[in-house]
Amino acid sequence: MGLIVQKYGGSSVADAESIKRVAKRIMETRRAGHEVCVVVSAMGDTTDELIDLAKQVSPIPEGREYDMLLTAGERISMSLVAMAINSMGGDARSYTGSQAGVITDQSFNRARITSVTPGRLRTALDEGAITIVAGFQGVSETTKDITTLGRGGSDTTAVALAAALGADVCEIYTDVDGVFSADPRLVPKARKLNRVTYEEMLELAASGAKILHLRSVEYARRFNVPIHVRSSFAQHEGTWVRAREEGETVEQAIIAGVAHDTSEAKVTVVGVPDKPGVAAQIFRTIADAELNIDMVVQNISAAATGRTDISFTLPVADGRRAITALQKVQPAIGFESLLFDDQIAKVSLVGAGMKSHPGVTAVFFEALSNVGVNAEMISTSEIRISVVCRADVVKDAVAALHTAFGLDADGEEAVVYGGTGR
Amino acid sequence: MGLIVQKYGGSSVADAESIKRVAKRIMETRRAGHEVCVVVSAMGDTTDELIDLAKQVSPIPEGREYDMLLTAGERISMSLVAMAINSMGGDARSYTGSQAGVITDQSFNRARITSVTPGRLRTALDEGAITIVAGFQGVSETTKDITTLGRGGSDTTAVALAAALGADVCEIYTDVDGVFSADPRLVPKARKLNRVTYEEMLELAASGAKILHLRSVEYARRFNVPIHVRSSFAQHEGTWVRAREEGETVEQAIIAGVAHDTSEAKVTVVGVPDKPGVAAQIFRTIADAELNIDMVVQNISAAATGRTDISFTLPVADGRRAITALQKVQPAIGFESLLFDDQIAKVSLVGAGMKSHPGVTAVFFEALSNVGVNAEMISTSEIRISVVCRADVVKDAVAALHTAFGLDADGEEAVVYGGTGR
Repeated sequence: MGLIVQKYGGSSVADAESIKRVAKRIMETRRAGHEVCVVVSAMGDTTDELIDLAKQVSPIPEGREYDMLLTAGERISMSLVAMAINSMGGDARSYTGSQAGVITDQSFNRARITSVTPGRLRTALDEGAITIVAGFQGVSETTKDITTLGRGGSDTTAVALAAALGADVCEIYTDVDGVFSADPRLVPKARKLNRVTYEEMLELAASGAKILHLRSVEYARRFNVPIHVRSSFAQHEGTWVRAREEGETVEQAIIAGVAHDTSEAKVTVVGVPDKPGVAAQIFRTIADAELNIDMVVQNISAAATGRTDISFTLPVADGRRAITALQKVQPAIGFESLLFDDQIAKVSLVGAGMKSHPGVTAVFFEALSNVGVNAEMISTSEIRISVVCRADVVKDAVAALHTAFGLDADGEEAVVYGGTGR
Repeated sequence: MGLIVQKYGGSSVADAESIKRVAKRIMETRRAGHEVCVVVSAMGDTTDELIDLAKQVSPIPEGREYDMLLTAGERISMSLVAMAINSMGGDARSYTGSQAGVITDQSFNRARITSVTPGRLRTALDEGAITIVAGFQGVSETTKDITTLGRGGSDTTAVALAAALGADVCEIYTDVDGVFSADPRLVPKARKLNRVTYEEMLELAASGAKILHLRSVEYARRFNVPIHVRSSFAQHEGTWVRAREEGETVEQAIIAGVAHDTSEAKVTVVGVPDKPGVAAQIFRTIADAELNIDMVVQNISAAATGRTDISFTLPVADGRRAITALQKVQPAIGFESLLFDDQIAKVSLVGAGMKSHPGVTAVFFEALSNVGVNAEMISTSEIRISVVCRADVVKDAVAALHTAFGLDADGEEAVVYGGTGR
């Protein structure tokens, strides 16, 4: 007995048959005695179809209308799921983001949830009803305009409602069994993780693992909402994402997994005058163009020339805007040229245990070296090491790290932590 | 210079190209100096597709979820129209029925507008913007649930907004040139009417003319909103629907047109005991089943048996429910049997002038008699005569009346009003 928030993604509600299967699953949860609040995404490719329609009538659809358009998708799926439950004898009621009390800021297309006032949901749950909520959408507190949370935002809706309703768990249903130690398409021996910490999941999501929306994990961590990622096609347990409990460190694996990301490109600003304030000018230019950058590397200045190179990575789709913005300030900054490289991949090793285990870094680079992978950029956090390498060796790099850190499903513990520190 | 409400139906916004054409037309109106508020229906067959989806997940979708589902259609079309206008350099903002202040009662699927509070629209219009509103939908004042106004409800939305905003005209754009003296598919010589009164339009709409939603005309009459029905594919004037002006009677044609309706069926309750209260029991039964009936006829009682027959017409889709409801009360009422006949048609002659012109009724029945059409039921109002006939002679009946009353586009004035009364 408890309150469970369940989120079903687009592939879980892709057609009438899938919707009926999801409705059955929701009914089973309710019949087991739980209160149930469900968050749904748009059916299958609906959102892509709506985006395509928008592009046909306007080259650059403005945010307000674009968001209004896209929210139609969840409106359709949520009412169909409610109908399906009711036709099975259940009592379900659907709510838009606005009706469910999902209040956001005014940033169309990528709004942030500022508060959740689930009064209507609470009343319906108290009356024994199942509540079905449109994911991905909210309403601006100041302008009352409809907003969307950006791609994957339904995960965030689910976690935010779970926090506001005090749910026992937020179940994220998907078409895979849970979070894996690496992408199973690259590493057949990848294994399902039974649990990861919020911090590990954040690093995995930021490093290219697509299973959970980054902001949903941030939200869950902040409000301590346990997430259970599982398959809507099976009954077995998936992956729990939650805070590390006291004394859990002993059992917890040192390394959670290996993530990769081939969606970024590298921009190199060549021949930058090596004096104070120049790097700041470059990154101010990028920020003013509203571009988010990921990794940054500055080479050691060549004393003879007094110039240096600065490289950074960003989503490949933002590359053109970055180059355009930098070209405009080239005369003012005085750098020599710009290089653009979209044949890169980022490979990351994530594990909360690595900060207390020396030698992880050494094993990491030895493993890459053994398969001939050259690290072009390096970035680390307390629980992550990332490198940029050529895109065509990403599979070798991921597989080598997966094996070296003993993550292979039937592999032996292959790691020898010989070093004394990172 | 004035405020114009324009309503575009589903065929006018069926695809991206149509939406761009509509956007251009709206822009032209705005550039001519008018304030413009636009009401749109769902794109093409969207509503039918959503209804089909609903049927796939639930045999009898309940009203609340069904209405939520259907309103997705206008949400899509309104945001696309706004985007298209903005991409042409205009300033358009879209609003759901709820955002536009369309307040209704709680009758899902066929809600009635109880008030309109267009504050957000007024503000946007004052700022020079074009407002685009989702037709067909509103929000229940008491429960805050989303409601729909029933099929064709976008016409009513447009008229209600025109009334609330004090618009100079409510333009209803469609795929034909206006209101015709008969259905041009049945009568090739049918002609476009330049103007009709609210009363005539009400009778035409109630008699099967599908060009305007009946309730929209009632609303327009009540608030004296001039309606201009015209083609979205042409620039010329269509049909004006408005109150008769002083001294206009002389110019006004006696007969506006001939309407027909093949969507009804006839139920006959055979052998009803001819005593007080029995008819009331029958119609109470029908009313309790929430069925609307149209024409009613009771035969003269056969003195020998003390029994009579009662016939009524209703939408053919409601036939089964009517029969089921009546069968349940057969023992209590004591009638002999039920007949169901869906091979009927209703043919109506409508004209505000007929009440002051004697002989119309005589010419009406002579015209039908001349082509061998038998009237099975008859019903009249001050400005209408309707008969029920066999469905397979509807074309002959409509054409004969159209000619007899001088409505043919190139015909001579053929009517001789020889009688002294109806």
